[in-house]
This record gives sequence, C-alpha cells and structure tokens, in this order.
Amino acid sequence: MFYHRKELQFHAKPDRPDPVYAKKLQEILGGQFGEISVAMQYLFQGWNARGDEKYKDLIMDTGTEELGHIEMISTMIARLLDDAPVKEQEKAAENPVIESILGGMNPHHAIVSGLGAMPENSTGVPWNAGYIVASGNLVSDMRANLNAESQGRLQVARLYEMTDDSGVRKMLSFLLARDTMHQNQWIAALKELEEKYGTTVPGTVPAEWEATEFSYDLMNFSDGEDSKKGSWASGKTPDGKGEFGYVQEPKAHGGKQELKPAPYYAHGTPPVEK
Amino acid sequence: MFYHRKELQFHAKPDRPDPVYAKKLQEILGGQFGEISVAMQYLFQGWNARGDEKYKDLIMDTGTEELGHIEMISTMIARLLDDAPVKEQEKAAENPVIESILGGMNPHHAIVSGLGAMPENSTGVPWNAGYIVASGNLVSDMRANLNAESQGRLQVARLYEMTDDSGVRKMLSFLLARDTMHQNQWIAALKELEEKYGTTVPGTVPAEWEATEFSYDLMNFSDGEDSKKGSWASGKTPDGKGEFGYVQEPKAHGGKQELKPAPYYAHGTPPVEK
Amino acid sequence: MFYHRKELQFHAKPDRPDPVYAKKLQEILGGQFGEISVAMQYLFQGWNARGDEKYKDLIMDTGTEELGHIEMISTMIARLLDDAPVKEQEKAAENPVIESILGGMNPHHAIVSGLGAMPENSTGVPWNAGYIVASGNLVSDMRANLNAESQGRLQVARLYEMTDDSGVRKMLSFLLARDTMHQNQWIAALKELEEKYGTTVPGTVPAEWEATEFSYDLMNFSDGEDSKKGSWASGKTPDGKGEFGYVQEPKAHGGKQELKPAPYYAHGTPPVEK
Amino acid sequence: MFYHRKELQFHAKPDRPDPVYAKKLQEILGGQFGEISVAMQYLFQGWNARGDEKYKDLIMDTGTEELGHIEMISTMIARLLDDAPVKEQEKAAENPVIESILGGMNPHHAIVSGLGAMPENSTGVPWNAGYIVASGNLVSDMRANLNAESQGRLQVARLYEMTDDSGVRKMLSFLLARDTMHQNQWIAALKELEEKYGTTVPGTVPAEWEATEFSYDLMNFSDGEDSKKGSWASGKTPDGKGEFGYVQEPKAHGGKQELKPAPYYAHGTPPVEK
Amino acid sequence: MFYHRKELQFHAKPDRPDPVYAKKLQEILGGQFGEISVAMQYLFQGWNARGDEKYKDLIMDTGTEELGHIEMISTMIARLLDDAPVKEQEKAAENPVIESILGGMNPHHAIVSGLGAMPENSTGVPWNAGYIVASGNLVSDMRANLNAESQGRLQVARLYEMTDDSGVRKMLSFLLARDTMHQNQWIAALKELEEKYGTTVPGTVPAEWEATEFSYDLMNFSDGEDSKKGSWASGKTPDGKGEFGYVQEPKAHGGKQELKPAPYYAHGTPPVEK
Amino acid sequence: MFYHRKELQFHAKPDRPDPVYAKKLQEILGGQFGEISVAMQYLFQGWNARGDEKYKDLIMDTGTEELGHIEMISTMIARLLDDAPVKEQEKAAENPVIESILGGMNPHHAIVSGLGAMPENSTGVPWNAGYIVASGNLVSDMRANLNAESQGRLQVARLYEMTDDSGVRKMLSFLLARDTMHQNQWIAALKELEEKYGTTVPGTVPAEWEATEFSYDLMNFSDGEDSKKGSWASGKTPDGKGEFGYVQEPKAHGGKQELKPAPYYAHGTPPVEK
Ligand SMILES: [Ca+2]
Ligand SMILES: [Ca+2]
Ligand SMILES: [Ca+2]
Ligand SMILES: [Ca+2]
Ligand SMILES: [Ca+2]
Ligand SMILES: [Ca+2]
Repeated sequence: MFYHRKELQFHAKPDRPDPVYAKKLQEILGGQFGEISVAMQYLFQGWNARGDEKYKDLIMDTGTEELGHIEMISTMIARLLDDAPVKEQEKAAENPVIESILGGMNPHHAIVSGLGAMPENSTGVPWNAGYIVASGNLVSDMRANLNAESQGRLQVARLYEMTDDSGVRKMLSFLLARDTMHQNQWIAALKELEEKYGTTVPGTVPAEWEATEFSYDLMNFSDGEDSKKGSWASGKTPDGKGEFGYVQEPKAHGGKQELKPAPYYAHGTPPVEK
Repeated sequence: MFYHRKELQFHAKPDRPDPVYAKKLQEILGGQFGEISVAMQYLFQGWNARGDEKYKDLIMDTGTEELGHIEMISTMIARLLDDAPVKEQEKAAENPVIESILGGMNPHHAIVSGLGAMPENSTGVPWNAGYIVASGNLVSDMRANLNAESQGRLQVARLYEMTDDSGVRKMLSFLLARDTMHQNQWIAALKELEEKYGTTVPGTVPAEWEATEFSYDLMNFSDGEDSKKGSWASGKTPDGKGEFGYVQEPKAHGGKQELKPAPYYAHGTPPVEK
Repeated sequence: MFYHRKELQFHAKPDRPDPVYAKKLQEILGGQFGEISVAMQYLFQGWNARGDEKYKDLIMDTGTEELGHIEMISTMIARLLDDAPVKEQEKAAENPVIESILGGMNPHHAIVSGLGAMPENSTGVPWNAGYIVASGNLVSDMRANLNAESQGRLQVARLYEMTDDSGVRKMLSFLLARDTMHQNQWIAALKELEEKYGTTVPGTVPAEWEATEFSYDLMNFSDGEDSKKGSWASGKTPDGKGEFGYVQEPKAHGGKQELKPAPYYAHGTPPVEK
Repeated sequence: MFYHRKELQFHAKPDRPDPVYAKKLQEILGGQFGEISVAMQYLFQGWNARGDEKYKDLIMDTGTEELGHIEMISTMIARLLDDAPVKEQEKAAENPVIESILGGMNPHHAIVSGLGAMPENSTGVPWNAGYIVASGNLVSDMRANLNAESQGRLQVARLYEMTDDSGVRKMLSFLLARDTMHQNQWIAALKELEEKYGTTVPGTVPAEWEATEFSYDLMNFSDGEDSKKGSWASGKTPDGKGEFGYVQEPKAHGGKQELKPAPYYAHGTPPVEK
Repeated sequence: MFYHRKELQFHAKPDRPDPVYAKKLQEILGGQFGEISVAMQYLFQGWNARGDEKYKDLIMDTGTEELGHIEMISTMIARLLDDAPVKEQEKAAENPVIESILGGMNPHHAIVSGLGAMPENSTGVPWNAGYIVASGNLVSDMRANLNAESQGRLQVARLYEMTDDSGVRKMLSFLLARDTMHQNQWIAALKELEEKYGTTVPGTVPAEWEATEFSYDLMNFSDGEDSKKGSWASGKTPDGKGEFGYVQEPKAHGGKQELKPAPYYAHGTPPVEK
Repeated sequence: MFYHRKELQFHAKPDRPDPVYAKKLQEILGGQFGEISVAMQYLFQGWNARGDEKYKDLIMDTGTEELGHIEMISTMIARLLDDAPVKEQEKAAENPVIESILGGMNPHHAIVSGLGAMPENSTGVPWNAGYIVASGNLVSDMRANLNAESQGRLQVARLYEMTDDSGVRKMLSFLLARDTMHQNQWIAALKELEEKYGTTVPGTVPAEWEATEFSYDLMNFSDGEDSKKGSWASGKTPDGKGEFGYVQEPKAHGGKQELKPAPYYAHGTPPVEK
C-alpha cells in the first residue's frame, strides 16, 4: 500500500522554458531505461520475491523511490513547456528560431497533454512493459537492475551535456547521484548473492543437464583474432569451474537444416500428398 | 558481411512432435531474452563500437554465433510441429487429449506459418527492437549482455524442466553450455573494463556534476528495516569512493509539486486568461 | 514522493492455486483497463494538473490507491501460481486435466516470471502507455476516468462469474466496491466541472470557430431509422444551446476526392513531369 | 455492407501547402483519439451490440460517418504535402526556413507514402487497436464514446490554434461541430441508459457480491485534505444508494505481502528444496 | 463518404457455437493479413492516389467491400461465442472437454468484449497499422495487394481445414471466392501497369543512379549451389534489360567496418579526449 | 550457421556528417521495408521451407546478403553522426542552422546509442516482427518478397533525391542495383512456381470448397464506373479459369446483422434473463 506526499524528492525548476529540451527529457521518463521502467521493474520484482526479506525490502525501498523520480521529471517537463510558442504562426514565418522550436517539439506536448509530460520516450513511442524484467531469480534480476541503472545514468550524463540551464542541471545532478547509489547497491547485493548461488545463473542447473564440453570455449565466428587477446579466451573462468578455450574454426555439430515435407492440409508448396 | 553454412551448429531433432511445447519454445526464440534479442543486441553493439578492436571482435564473434542459434531453435520448432493434429476435429470432439493440444497450440503455427517457427514469443507477441541495448558505452553494454545471458539461461533451465523429450533436452543442454560461456566471457570482459573505467557508469562524469551528498545513501521508502541488514547499507562502497549510509526517514528536498496555470490556447480547465 | 507499507490494502489469498485463472486475472492487472492503467492515468493527470487543488488532490489520492491495487492483484496472481504443475509431463500424458492446465496457462508465468505476475494482459500482451489519457482538461479527463472505472468494474464482474474460489471472490468484492466509489466520485466531480465549464468539451471554443449549422444534427449514414426514436434526434440538446435534428439523407458538402499529380521526385505512378 | 461516394463530406482544401502542419494533423487521423479510433470503436460496438436496435442504429450511423472523416483528413494531409520541398538540399544549406521544414516534417510523408497520409499519429507511431473499446455493455461504451469525442474535440481546438490557414480552419470548424453533436448525442443516450440500468456500471452486480462497506469512501492516500472539499467527500452519492465518506488515514485490511518460497523447478533464489 | 446497409454481404451463421474456433478466426479479422488490414490498406491507397481514375476507383471499390468483410467475420465470431461456457467452473472440474474450451478460448472474448469480436489476431495481439502499405506508387502497391490477398486466401484455406461446421465453411467458401477475384484483379492491373512503367519498381530511376554492374548477379552467400539451377541464375532477366549472372564467391567491395572514436560528450568507452 | 567477415559488402562513407539525414536513413534500416525486415523475412522463410532445395538455397543466399546490408547502413548512419553538434547550446541560440539540426535529429542518436544506428525507423519506432511474412507457401512468399523489394527500392530512390552527398549516393546506387536484382530474381522464381502451382494461391483448394459464382466479379462498391474500363472487369482471367464480370449494384446475400441477446453472466445491457 502506498502513500503520497505533495513535496518533490528534489528540485525540478528550470531557469526558463525550453520545449525542445522537454522532448529530449522524455527519454529518461518514458524510455527503455526511464524512470517508469525502473519503478515498474523493481516493484514487480519486489511483489514477486519469494525469498529473503532483506532483498525484498531493498527492492521495495528503491522501487518506491523511483515513483518519486517519475513525478520529479514529469514536473520538470511540464515546467519546460510553460509558454511554449505553439500559437505563434505569424512570427514563425519570419523567425526561424521560433519555426525551429515548433518543428523540434514533441507535437503531443501541444496537442495531446496540453503542456504536460507524456508517458513516452524522446521519439514519442509510448512506454511498454516489454522493457522490464522480474524473473523470480535474484542474481539474474540484480544484473537486470545494474544494467538499468548503468544505461540510465549514461543517458542522464548525455542529457546534462545537452543543456546549459542551471535548474535542469541541478535536477540531473541529483539523478546522477541516485544512480551512483543504485549502481553501488546492486553491485553490493550481487556480490552477496553470487557468493551464495554462484556467478552462473541459475546456479541450480545440475551438471548432467549441460553439454559441458561447450561451456568455456570462445568460438571465432567473426574473422580476425583480436578477441583472442582478451581475458575471456584463456585462463581460469570467473565461475572457478573451468578454463577458457578458443576455437579458431568453429564446427557444425548438427546435420543439414532440412525439414520433412508439409502435409497437404498446410497448403504449402509443394503439396506432397492429396 | 556474412556467410551461411547449411549445417546446424548443434542437433535440433526432437524424439517426437509436440505442438504445445513448440509454443513454449518460442519464448527463447522471439521473446524478450530470446535468440533474436541477443543476436541483434550484439550485432548492433559491434557495428556501433567506436573503440578497442578486441571487444568489437568478441562481440561480433558472439553475435554471429547467436544467428546460428535462431536457426537451431527455429528448426526445432518446425520439427515439433510435424504432423500437428490441426485437422482432427471429429476426433477432438471425443478425445480430450487432442482437444487440449489444439487449444494449447499457438494458432499462428497452424494458420500463419504453415507449421514453421514464428518471430514471436510464447504468448504470440511479435519480437520488437525495444528489447535490445547498444549504448556506445562498453561497461554499460557488457552489463546488458550479462543480464541477457542470465535471463536467457534461466529460461532455458525452466524449459528443460518442462519436457521429457531427450532430443529437445539435448539441444537445451547445448544452449545451457553456451550461455554458461557467454555469462563467463561477459563477466571477464566487464572485469577488465571496470578496472579501466571504474564501476560506476559512465566513468566520465566529473564530480562537480553530481550532487554527491546523495551518492551513497540507501533511502528507506518502504516500511521495515530489513534492507538495513545488507552490505549496501553500511561500509565501503564497491566503487571505492564512499561509505554507504542509511536514511531512516527520507526527506523531501523539493517544494510542493505545483504548476503555473495553463495558457488559454491550451484549452485546459480553468482557462486563466482569454 | 511516495512511501510504501508492507501490508496489503485488502486480502489477496485464494483458497487454492489455479494457474489458468491466474492468466485471466492478468486482464485487470496489465490490460487496457487494468490497475496499471488507472494508476498511471491518474498520476499523470495529477502531475500535469495546472488548476484547482481540490481536483488535483482527489486525483492523487485515487492514483496512489491504485498503486496498492496493482500490488494486491500481483500478489493474488503469484499465489494462484503456487505449485503450478509445470513439470508434470508424464502425468499430463495420461491426465487430460493436467494437460488442460498446462495448455491453458500463460507460458510466461512458468518461463519468464518464475511463478509471479507479469505486467501484461490476459492474452500476454505487455501493458503500454497508449492506453492512458492525461489531457490537461479536467472535464475531458474526468470522462476518461469514468470510462476507465466503468470498463474496469465490468471486467471484475465478469471475472467474479468465472471463479468459485471464495478467496478470489473476496478480493474481487473489494475491487467492485472501490470501483463503485470511483465511478461515483468521478460523476460527482464531473457534475461540478460541467456546471462551471459546460458539457461540451472544451468549453473555451468561440462560437465563430465552429460550423454551427452542423452542431446538432444526427446524420443517418446507416440504413434504417431506428436511431430516430432516441432522445438524441429531436428536442433540446444537453448543452442547452440547440435543438437536435435528424438528417434522413446526409449530403456531401465537399467536392470530389482528387489530388494533384505527384511530383517526379516522389517516384509515384505516373510521373507527370521530369 | 458499405457503399462509398467519391465526394467528401466536407471541404478539405488548405490555402497552401504546409508539410510541418501535415505532421501535426496526423494526430487526429491516426492518434489515440483520431478518426480511425472513433470509426473502429463505433463499428465494433455496433457489430457486437446484442440489444435494442435504436442504440445499434445510432452507433452504426456515427461509425459510418467517421469513416468519411478519415477520408477528409487524409485528403487534407495529402494536399498539405503538395510540393513539399523534400529535394531542396542546396537551398536548405543557405535557407534556415527550408531546413526547418525538412527537419519538422514527418519523414514517412516523403519516404514511405510519397506525399500521402499515413495511418499513424503526430509522432509517427502506427495506429493500434489497443486504443478502442467495445465491451458489450452500452452504458460503459457510451462513456467510452463521450470520452473519445471530448478528447478529440479538445485536440481539434488545439490544432485550430496552431494554424492561420483559412482552408484548414474551415475543415476544423466542421469537425468541431460534429464533435459537439457527438458529445451531445452520447450524453443523451447515456441519460436514457442510466435511467434504465443505473449509474454504476454494470448495474447487474448483486449487492452480496460487493464489499459495500468500502463502496462510498474517499481514501486520503495523498497528503493534504483539499479533496475533502469536493462534492465527492460528503452527501448523497450520484447512484442514490449511499453517503460519501472521507477516510483521513486509510488502513491496511490485508496482511503483509508475503509469498511461499518458490519450488525448485522454478530455479529462483533461493531454491528451498530439491 | 460512406453509407452502411444493415444486411451482410454474405451469410455468417455457424451451425453451433464454438468459442475455441472463434479465437482462431480472429486471425483473418485482426491479423497481419486480416480484413482490417486489406480494408485499411486499400482505402489509404485510394485516398493517396494521385493518378489515373480507373485504378483509384478499382481500389476504392475493393477497399469498401473489405469493410463489409470485417462486418461479416465479426458477426460470425460473435455467433460462435453464443452460450460460451465461461461460467461452468463446477462442471469444468469434472469435465475435461469444458476445461479445454475454457483454456482454449481467447480470454478477451469473455472478459473484455462480452462475447463479441475483438480487433486483434488469433494470439490476442491488437491490430496495428504497421501491417499496411500505401506508397503512392501503383506498381509497388499492386504487388502489396497481391501479396495480401495471397496470404489471406492461404489462411482462409487453412481455417477451412480446421472446422467441420457447415455454416462456417459456407462463409469461408465466399471468402475463398472473393480472394480468388482479388488476386486475379490485382494480377490484371499489375500487368497493365508493368507494361507502362516496367517491372522494376520504381521505373523512374535514371540508369546513372544505379551501380548497374551489381544489378543482375545472384550472390552465393549460403553454401551449396542449388540456387544456381533456377531461372534466376542465368538467361535474360524479366525486365528485359540484362543477363542473370551467378557469383560463386561474393567479394567485399567496402573496407573494414571501423568507426572514428567517440567524442568525449558521448560518454562512451574509451573517452578519447576530454 | 553463420560466419562474419569484417569488410563491408560495399562502401559506406559519407562525404561529411549529416545527423538529420541519419535520421531519415533509419527508414531503410529499421522500417517496415528496411534491411532488418528483408533479412529476417528471408531467413525465416528459408528455415521454414519444407520443399525444393533450389528455392531454399536462393532464399538463404539472399537473406544472408541482407544481413550484410544491415551492417552497411548501420555503418553509414554512425558515420553520418560523427561530430553531431549535440553539445552546442550556446551557438544554437544564435545560429538557427544548428538549432535546426538539433531539432531535426533523432534524439536517440544522441541520448541512447551514443552516435550509433538504432534498430528503428525514421520516426523512431522500434522494428517489430509483425512486418514480416514466412507462410510456408512459396508462391505466396515470393509475392511478399517481390513486394518488399519494390517498396524498398522505392524508398531508396526517394532517399537518393534527398541528399547531395556523393558518398551516401554511392552506397544508395549499390542498394538500387541489388534491389533490381532481387526484384528480378523473385519475378523469375514466381514465374516458375506459378507455372507449377497456378496463379491463384493456394493452388490446392478444391473447387467444391469455393463459392465459385463469386470468384470473378468486380463489385462496384464505390460510386463511379471508372474501374469498369480496366482489364479486370471483362475478358479472360489471369488464372485462365474464368471470365471477369462487373456487378453494377452489388447485392447483400446475407440477412440482417443481428445477434442473440447476451446471457446474464456477460453483464451487458440489457440483461435479458437472470
Ligand atoms: Ca573473431
Ligand atoms: Ca525499508
Ligand atoms: Ca440509421
Ligand atoms: Ca489527500
Ligand atoms: Ca547458395
Ligand atoms: Ca466504382
């Protein structure tokens, strides 16, 4: 059960409106690694967690915080849209800067939301739940979380480069900091979990299920042997169970890719019987 | 540029047809973490790589291998669909097992592909590129890759549980092995890269951009303090730059979430001027 | 900013597992009118609200409650999946009831989430933000909200019919009640707002913008005159500004649908100039 | 069965080409509340109607009219694209206005449709049927229809503000008028239906199915008590069956959100048995 | 402008309800090549046509007919859903046939549409406009149309195999016939157009734009030379302008795939300057 | 199984960066008829082919080539993004050309991919597998392939018009040539197959399944008789089995579109029994 407080977790006031930047900022709200994604990912992981309470609480703490980040960025976007010159046609005809703004805005900000944030990314694609992960395996999900916070902080850094507005940058500085924390906490949690369950997910697969002769070989399917120089082509494997190998010319172990003819009722070509 | 060889990388022959299992197997072909996802993710990462050749070659080696996995699973699905009893209405009326098979199949296998694999997941949703990541930052992308191989191997393990067919299990044993390798190689690459660029992505953010007073604190937004017991709530942070803190009662640092009234031309309620 | 409490708003304990029903229940979690939709719709409306605080607070109160409903239904789904017989192949071959369960489940519950809820609808389509509305016009949005709660309660009623489980029905009885309240509150708010801004949205359109000769006529585009018998074909209009009319044979007021030939550079057929 | 007449329902001739505005106009053609949405929504409601002929005829009359609106707006878009300067690279380099036009256009208009309308919204997202509603319950569907016409007319008003072209405005004036009629007719139909079936949808739910102690209380989940001032927090409810209440501090009626451990075959963490 | 007549173009009465078949029939209503696709494809082609009236009229004749097919199949689906045993839980527990029906139905038919057709395909994915084509080039679009009618008729034939119901088969026999006509008419139109504009689309590309040394060679990128035996590997080309060639070992004509290092502000790895 | 060579199939070097054009070029990479579509379409057709080896080999040769085209265009896009002025805010304020570039770019190129190609179209919509076709019927699929190459080459021609860059044009000249070959090869293959299986797909439908009285008539559903002038309204049909006819006033052969009342448990309006 959730409660909401009207104050924002952090400041979200731009120095001045900037509707073109508002469009870009949508990426970290409703994009693949935006705040909707992390909020929903963590909450679903928390609700589906069937194990140790300390992980579940950590996940719920963070998922709930992310709901507040959706709110913060939505607020910033709405404020960047204040006074957007959507009605300035006459001026636009003479003034290329206004024309540029009109052309560079997300039309949804003017037509659909009436100068408010949209639940979509920077190209106007609606957020969808195909972005998120809640697998019921904590090692695996911590890796998903670390990935999400890494991509997210990278995007925040790029957006920081793309504005001079000190109010916007202030909010981004807070998001950079929280993403630093979230990367560090998922790394810490992952370390704990990997010590317990192993580094190869899932740790529960019996050895006899696996064709272990293929478990530690790098196969050279793209010409050039630059990849042979890495720490993944020789030496002990990170899971401590094998030695990396390098297969110069990978072999085909299965036969020719051939299928039986289709039955008549599939109406393919050729019909082999009637 | 690519070349194709007609032989499969590994065996893909089921003991017997099983159209209901064919539907399930679609998950690791066209699902969020299926073979289309890893192939496309790695290839786009490789093509967009702007740095060290050894990482690029590693990524292209693996991306190209995954194309062969799409082929292998597609072949298995087509073979599981051989002789699917899609035309057995009369029998179905009397025979609940046939009725179950008809009800449990993916209708696309009968109506759309004519007993072939579909580029979609186990619920029939078409694959889409919103699943993949190629960010131009290798640390970040290696984490995406490790995540993908972890989720992927977890799904293969679950699918292994769900069949008794020794031919299907043989193919899955190969996939388990390759996912073991791919997890290990991405961990190894990640270790190299983190040593060079740091564990917090991106490593290029100047300290003055970040509100560092918020960079290492866990905030307790979900009641209960179980999360305080973890390695992420006190002690040295993994990036070596801070000490974890725990904020019992997180504060609001921003003011009330309020917006200016909408201009008349937004036609909101209330119109504040005319 | 949000806080989370570990207790559920209401009971979510089924009498017994039922993985086939778990699939159906996904509709009111991640479907077009599921709890994710209403939560996100109300929260975005609240964050984008640029007017009177009492509406904003009402919207935020309700949006925050809906987050708790996502949690409640997710929990119920996970519990309905306890002990799902996903591994019972041998038995299934002999036991059509088990075969039916396996065929009737959402495969994602077994393969992707590991016996947890998914952010998707009852046919396995991921939730997407194209379902929701936050327009910046409160009259319009209250109508969207009334629509959402009406469709939602209708679906809950149908799902109530489809189970005998008293634990599931208990949770549904709570959702029926809350949807009753939400329908009533949006009707009450709408009445207030319509009195202030009129019933035709948006109330800010000047009369001279509108081709008012077409504003109150029902046009008979589908043969038969049954529609002429309704309260919308004659008499005073609800907005109090006109009289309904009925046009027996609707006319074409625009000319023939014709376009200028395409320029050469469009490479259409025929190229009319070069 | 349908027939088509070559003349348009209303004029669709712009004064002059304007490819940037053509992009914006796509919203009311292929957006969430565009003409494709209302046409398909009403037609599916009409085809699925299982009751009184007068409602079915009204719905089919309107759905068929909307097909003509798709045609009208498609024609306008094609005409706005006449002579779009997609080939003027040399000039663009010197002329920022042309550069702006090229940047502000929907690239599909030049590359995909060859200067014709696209079945997509103003950000280029294809129309999808997840936007529409046909529930088989007329009260519910009339509310969906009133919502659609309200959002639609709001978007038309905003688009009216965004152009000076008298030809475009003429067509929009017609759409404003038809949306006025459609809002009024759905309100009238809704009034009839609510009198018969009640205002709480669906009216067929027996009282004993509902946890009626929760049916009329507003719960204060977002801090601040502004919402207490509304007509929804005290007094008689619109359905005439209750009194609104206000719950200052909403309680948790369900226990702690906890799940049973996962079975081994789910390969979660931790595996609790083997 | 469109008119609607209440009678169906053809009979749509099943002998008896069959909710499992209703799910399958959705494919030709709301699938990639269902009736919604052909209706929308032809109508958009007609509205965007900028050339000869006889093609435009042909396209509009057919597009308008397809609207009637959507209606016919929607009606059939609703009738197949009459009396669907969605409420028979007690019986289902004992009766595997009923359990199968419940498991094999599209849950939307029970929960969302209230026993009516849905605008989605046989796996429950909503129709989307990414399926259709209207390019402004008639040769190209006639090929799209021939493709659509070929895939469509193939799916109808497969669905014919999957039922014994004489009423359903009667409707399918009509659809088979109309698809025969539509294939034949598009072939006839294509022949006319190819004679005028050539067989290589678009016919307007000047020879000097094309690297003609690559215009007629089959490149052997997949091992095995079976493809050399076809009519496409030697002899005159269909466009009458060249001779087919066969390249045994395709060469790389471009250099190594390498990119310049990323600028610092992209925050990739490695940052090459600061 | 696939192998990859580091050299590109053809040159992909622009004369100079052009981030606005990079956005447009995405259409032929990740759009409906982009290289991802043809690669995936052909590969799935090849893997699902159950017949003659020479067609399978032809399809696999071409599908594998298309993988190389994805690579080529991705490379071109990345190079067009070199030095994109994403960080030039101060200058943009004064320089409308820079402002235009920033507004006209795909924001994903700056924020998500770090100056690399994205798997999406020119409006930023991710590629999805709903674009492709692999039906198991070769005649039908060859028509899909001919359609894809026709739309594809048309889009390349339009993109050729939209740039002056000689490096970009060089790559496009190669794509124009390969699309010429692919159109010619599919026409040749289609001719072979149609001679064997007939021109009406699928050729396996027995005459008694079809309501042949409707198989060759054009029905005039859109007013005007221009379509009567075409080769599809009289004379021998292309399949050699009939004579085209023209139906001036198409009749309704089915009765009125009416459904039985809904059962109570569907909670529609009106409930007809209880
Ligand atoms: Ca290599
Ligand atoms: Ca906590
Ligand atoms: Ca009528
Ligand atoms: Ca409150
Ligand atoms: Ca070959
Ligand atoms: Ca006609």
